Amino acid sequence: METIDRKGGSALWHQIGEILAADIAAGIFAPGEKLPTEPELMQRFGVSRFTVRQALGHLEQRGLVRAEQGRGTFVHRGVLDYTLSKRTRFNKNLIEQGFEPGGELLVHEIVPATERIATYLKLAMGVPVIHRRGVMTADGIPVELGDSYYPAERFPDFDKARLHHPTISAALASYGVTDYERLSTEIEARMPTAEEARILRQPKSTPLLITRKVDADAGGVPITYSESMWSAERITFNVDLR
Amino acid sequence: METIDRKGGSALWHQIGEILAADIAAGIFAPGEKLPTEPELMQRFGVSRFTVRQALGHLEQRGLVRAEQGRGTFVHRGVLDYTLSKRTRFNKNLIEQGFEPGGELLVHEIVPATERIATYLKLAMGVPVIHRRGVMTADGIPVELGDSYYPAERFPDFDKARLHHPTISAALASYGVTDYERLSTEIEARMPTAEEARILRQPKSTPLLITRKVDADAGGVPITYSESMWSAERITFNVDLR
Repeated sequence: METIDRKGGSALWHQIGEILAADIAAGIFAPGEKLPTEPELMQRFGVSRFTVRQALGHLEQRGLVRAEQGRGTFVHRGVLDYTLSKRTRFNKNLIEQGFEPGGELLVHEIVPATERIATYLKLAMGVPVIHRRGVMTADGIPVELGDSYYPAERFPDFDKARLHHPTISAALASYGVTDYERLSTEIEARMPTAEEARILRQPKSTPLLITRKVDADAGGVPITYSESMWSAERITFNVDLR
Repeated sequence: METIDRKGGSALWHQIGEILAADIAAGIFAPGEKLPTEPELMQRFGVSRFTVRQALGHLEQRGLVRAEQGRGTFVHRGVLDYTLSKRTRFNKNLIEQGFEPGGELLVHEIVPATERIATYLKLAMGVPVIHRRGVMTADGIPVELGDSYYPAERFPDFDKARLHHPTISAALASYGVTDYERLSTEIEARMPTAEEARILRQPKSTPLLITRKVDADAGGVPITYSESMWSAERITFNVDLR
């Protein structure tokens, strides 16, 4: 039976969850593999079925495993290989790897451009910009939290246009932007805020990969600035360098 | 006077260092700007000169500030904009931004290829590979800790060849590899191990950016696999996408 710190600050289910998460990270349980059964885990850790279920629920919440009705708990397909190129499209990327893409719009608002947004979009500070915040999922697990900014004067009623077109590209085309290209892409890493960790359903102790990009129309005028926060434990970027 | 937790678990100098680090991260003290003087900081935090010096020493150790004899303490130039392209060269990248590049070889050894290394280099597992670990610096501050692997049979006495040539490219050319190109580039983020944090002189609580790349000769045969750990608080990648 494995030793668990029964007097320590951390709840038993949490400690067991962390041990199993470390086993998954170390490849002891491989992607797609079935975890030991509840009775096996009860015996391994010397705890109740309730505690084992809490630990497994914690892992499922983090997107590391998924419970399948009547079959057991399986290690999630795990790290997504995400190709970064000028022509990257989220849905296409995921579908090619057999993941089901999904998403939810969290915020649509018009705000004055901060200095930072104005610099990226080559606008005057304070000019109105459309801010859209959304979360993108792979098989229902959040992988990206993104903030996008568009010049509001150029794209009036963008929310309605977006509703009437299946993709961002199609919505932009309805304003005459039939083609656009990537001006710049930046990548950084940092720790998440409490809100980012909550939305991405990941621990506050694992980092985010941050991408920042500017797209421009055929004349080189910026049309979108986007910042994306990616749960680093769920993604590897494959970078298509020039 | 700012409130400091005098009974808490963390030493006063450490708390003050963290407050100043947060001020720097938030841009309250901009890159190149002079920090308040020691007497000013003593007054702001209500602590001794010794404690202020410990806090500033901590910031300098982390590469966030640099003390200049008789002039005061200045916020370090800070985040390095590092261009990632197929033709990226560390020294050129730094020199273009006015940083002085430097480096130190920490390990040179011949080891059997692990499954992972063998896969990247398209070798059989267990075949001897040269492992070189080095740390690269910008103005004396560590920014990259890198592990590179080369097929040992193809590059006998590589350590001597490297000593006699100013660059890796020149050393490879002495084996007839006159040109090479990038096969793949991956980017991830994770927390550092204690050793990585120590070598990079950064806190264990800030993440690393990880790059993994494979270079191949003109015939497409892999000649190097490299993993680099970058201190995320010191670098932004500008990615030149195709």
